Amino acid sequence: MSATPRSTRSKPKNPGSQSALRQLNQQRIIESLMGGPSTQAELARQTGLSTATVSNIVKIMLDSGLASTEPITSSGRRALNVRLNSNGAVAVGIDFGRRHLRVVLASLSYHIIAEESVMLPLGHQAEEGIQAAVVLLDKLLQDSGIERSAVVGAGVGIPGPIDRRTGTVAQGAILPEWVGINILQHLEETLRIPVFVDNDANLGAWSEVTWGQHTGVSNLMFLKIGSGIGAGLILNGAPYYGNVGITGEIGHATIHEQGLVCRCGNRGCLETIASTTTMIELLSRGEDRPLTPADIVRKALNRDPATLRVVDDAGLSVGRALGNVANLINPEVIVVGGPLAGLGDLLLDPIRRGLVRHAVPVIGETTTLTMSSLGDRAEALGAAALVFQHAGIRKT
Amino acid sequence: MSATPRSTRSKPKNPGSQSALRQLNQQRIIESLMGGPSTQAELARQTGLSTATVSNIVKIMLDSGLASTEPITSSGRRALNVRLNSNGAVAVGIDFGRRHLRVVLASLSYHIIAEESVMLPLGHQAEEGIQAAVVLLDKLLQDSGIERSAVVGAGVGIPGPIDRRTGTVAQGAILPEWVGINILQHLEETLRIPVFVDNDANLGAWSEVTWGQHTGVSNLMFLKIGSGIGAGLILNGAPYYGNVGITGEIGHATIHEQGLVCRCGNRGCLETIASTTTMIELLSRGEDRPLTPADIVRKALNRDPATLRVVDDAGLSVGRALGNVANLINPEVIVVGGPLAGLGDLLLDPIRRGLVRHAVPVIGETTTLTMSSLGDRAEALGAAALVFQHAGIRKT
Repeated sequence: MSATPRSTRSKPKNPGSQSALRQLNQQRIIESLMGGPSTQAELARQTGLSTATVSNIVKIMLDSGLASTEPITSSGRRALNVRLNSNGAVAVGIDFGRRHLRVVLASLSYHIIAEESVMLPLGHQAEEGIQAAVVLLDKLLQDSGIERSAVVGAGVGIPGPIDRRTGTVAQGAILPEWVGINILQHLEETLRIPVFVDNDANLGAWSEVTWGQHTGVSNLMFLKIGSGIGAGLILNGAPYYGNVGITGEIGHATIHEQGLVCRCGNRGCLETIASTTTMIELLSRGEDRPLTPADIVRKALNRDPATLRVVDDAGLSVGRALGNVANLINPEVIVVGGPLAGLGDLLLDPIRRGLVRHAVPVIGETTTLTMSSLGDRAEALGAAALVFQHAGIRKT
Repeated sequence: MSATPRSTRSKPKNPGSQSALRQLNQQRIIESLMGGPSTQAELARQTGLSTATVSNIVKIMLDSGLASTEPITSSGRRALNVRLNSNGAVAVGIDFGRRHLRVVLASLSYHIIAEESVMLPLGHQAEEGIQAAVVLLDKLLQDSGIERSAVVGAGVGIPGPIDRRTGTVAQGAILPEWVGINILQHLEETLRIPVFVDNDANLGAWSEVTWGQHTGVSNLMFLKIGSGIGAGLILNGAPYYGNVGITGEIGHATIHEQGLVCRCGNRGCLETIASTTTMIELLSRGEDRPLTPADIVRKALNRDPATLRVVDDAGLSVGRALGNVANLINPEVIVVGGPLAGLGDLLLDPIRRGLVRHAVPVIGETTTLTMSSLGDRAEALGAAALVFQHAGIRKT
């Protein structure tokens, strides 16, 4: 297999001004240094830049504290190795939701430098979302005193399938306004840094094995229960993307052949039974305004009988679908994330009952089922980790 | 990920006589030569054997045509490289079924030297099956004029899950008499060669990407429809074994929550609807004797209405389960194998309808569904290929 996920990236199309060019060149040097310290001569060879350009940029990086030097002996001569300072280069993680946007800045040593989330209007256009992300990113960089040129790249999570053949958001996304948009190209043109796009559930999974409690787990599934239900897969230690890049669509597992019509065009899909959208519909009758996922968590913790029943029914169906999934891919760990994570065992217990009921016994017994400890930061952290993964940086 | 599957192997426990020891040492030299030609000095280093032992065994191998030599210059001195003749070393593939046993001998160049299958009594004990395999293997070797010592190893397929933590056949096997048996240990003690055990559906999948028409496909699922229904997975180019080694249990996907009780203890599993066992039950009413899978194929091809209906219903249910599977792992190709392969489109068409009906549209459209071209040889060929894989030999 290839350890490199197929999330495409490309260089910004119009480098533009001198300063933009300098920034691009600096990024190239940073990427090269992420593989380890190098002399300026080696950097010139690795990047294809002139020695004068390398020398100029390295000087700026030393001045700004992005890098430092250490004396070595190279080919019998004394030379200076340039080393990236661990907090010098920064990865950006951006998580787009149906009505929120979160941006994190993370250091190469997997330290969170800054993070912030804002609300987005329901039904917003992709352009609005991207613009809001740029504004928030610039604010975080400014607040933290970090230059744009220190940014190695940005990972971006989208709540919907990404067709890896075209790089576009595919049908079935929770953000219908984003379907068909080449998010990668849009973002690279706007941010002028390398961008890596992935599905939010894939990023959740990647987050769990990098930032989360499951570092080192080879076969993990991250199940996100929200307005939609989707899963991200880590198989044999790497994010799994399948043939066209659309995997983990467990929300469209058929539960009731003649059930409700789903947004995907099928009937009785898991999402029609267990998404927060469905739970909200069921529980908002007679209420002044529709409930929010936070209301469901609060009411269930307050032991409201109808809420408990709706959560239990949803959990059983999720467990049934997970049983079939576990029979197929036999994961070591299944992590549940999304806005209902605060329900804890109220949601995990029926899921576990459904899983054990429908899985082959030895699989039901050996699969660990747990809530995500990363909460609503999972996707943004995974997005930042995606940048490190592309640069070949593992958490140490 | 690790490209090495976790099917364990160990050296025979009791080397025994001088000739058995000679055979073990020769195997060690053959395994070493499978990595490429070596001088005798290199072989001694690689195997830990004395130069005298290496020299003796290489002489026997040269005499028997197993290997040949070629002059080279090593460290400035002239030396002889020992090279394995492509038909010199042999891998054995053994496929155990509920009532059959197949053995193939294959050369390193993926050429079938000999193959034969025999019937086994229904409900036979594991010992009987293993003994029959040893007899058949010896016959094939003798008929082909191949020494036992030329055998590099044996791959073995079992129609049931293998618990990789213990190496035993797990609950849910189509051969209930084999459950709990450490097949690996039994076979190594009997055959006195390295043995690699795997589930038959995994071997079918491996066969398709090595011997079959899907060489080079990274994400493939092999679905075996027989007395049981199981799938083997090739993910990211390697056999996928999951956490405890029990994967592809699609036969136990829940189709009807309140359906028939399945041998796994659940209800309404795919196997209770679409296995040959169920089809035979449905179609044998009023017949003098139970039908065989071959009868089903014959009657369907003769357009017997009840048979066509039963096959169609089974196919639709298989397709429904495949739709959910494809939504999860987005394979490039799904290959259907097993004793009903002769049904061709009579079985593939309803499976395709079910798949398209239940998969997310883009996945339904991009997943190739096809019958295995390897027929009932898929598992035994995959078993032989498993030996090559362990030795790091790829098909050229």
